[in-house]
Amino acid sequence: MRAERTRAAILGAAVHLGSLRGLGELSIGGLASTVEMSKSGLFAHFGSKEELQLATVTQAWHIFEEEVVPFPREGIDPSLEALLERWLSFFERKVLPGGCFFVIAAVEFAGLDGPVNDALARALEDQIAAIEAAVRVANESGELPAGKDPSGTAFALHSILVNANSVFVVRGDRGVLDDARVAIGELLGRPQGSREALVAPHA
Amino acid sequence: MRAERTRAAILGAAVHLGSLRGLGELSIGGLASTVEMSKSGLFAHFGSKEELQLATVTQAWHIFEEEVVPFPREGIDPSLEALLERWLSFFERKVLPGGCFFVIAAVEFAGLDGPVNDALARALEDQIAAIEAAVRVANESGELPAGKDPSGTAFALHSILVNANSVFVVRGDRGVLDDARVAIGELLGRPQGSREALVAPHA
Repeated sequence: MRAERTRAAILGAAVHLGSLRGLGELSIGGLASTVEMSKSGLFAHFGSKEELQLATVTQAWHIFEEEVVPFPREGIDPSLEALLERWLSFFERKVLPGGCFFVIAAVEFAGLDGPVNDALARALEDQIAAIEAAVRVANESGELPAGKDPSGTAFALHSILVNANSVFVVRGDRGVLDDARVAIGELLGRPQGSREALVAPHA
Repeated sequence: MRAERTRAAILGAAVHLGSLRGLGELSIGGLASTVEMSKSGLFAHFGSKEELQLATVTQAWHIFEEEVVPFPREGIDPSLEALLERWLSFFERKVLPGGCFFVIAAVEFAGLDGPVNDALARALEDQIAAIEAAVRVANESGELPAGKDPSGTAFALHSILVNANSVFVVRGDRGVLDDARVAIGELLGRPQGSREALVAPHA
């Protein structure tokens, strides 16, 4: 039980550090000094740098899924706009404090073979698929402007989300998240110029 | 003269390595083994890791500017669509082989003080400003659909470019660059479904 709590605390620090400074920078030695444990203490929980990185990706994805992805759950609005608003809010609250954890790390690990790269590539595809699924539902129920290409729209929406977070992190100014809301509103054929939340929070 | 050629060769390798593995990973020691020089040989050209990283950013920006940015120059189509097509072609030809060099590196260095971070943040703003300028010209000449918010449109276009390259690098499949052309075409109010180049190459 104590070992599980320790592991969870280490992983929390690993997600934070990996998000801020890049997953590739995450090593057992570097993390040990952050959590004030010995390297051998950390090795007892994660047998290698790769194992630590993989557990960090899994933990980051759990956090993202819990906060953002619209799997059927009581009290969660399954609409496209609610999904996009949860995603922007996730960035705005700096739940993972760096750039978009999965895209940045997936680019960093692209071309390297191994389970970390595989997990990151899968997370990126799962992100795009989650938006595509919500776009298709919105398209079928007539919420999108006529004649929109659903997968092109989903790709554009994913791009705006990820880039908004990149620019937010670089500028340190949340205004770009509202720019993203304007761009998303235009893409979805909503009245122009709204910088409000896409849906009321917790709707 | 020989020193300049050596410096250029080192910087070429530095841009390649920094693009593939992240600018933060770029160190004098790591680069020395790539270019098969001694660390002290490299120190003669770049006095510190920071100086090397800064020179690498400058060199990467020169390459990008030469290939993409529409400064007035004979034979270069100054239109928005030609700019976007040059940008996608720049990614497709893997001129800088990793993800979008400037955005990924700017996110990596965000929150760190120093000249490297400053140069990266400036490059990101210059990229967005180049698209905004072309969008404003297109808007004034009636090439954009009526009622589009120019800065929202510019932000969406920049997002699609950067994310297309991220997904391209992760998937290793250029199909996403055509998806980006579809999404850009929709955003600019062009007929749906075209996966062709936005303008004829070298137009």
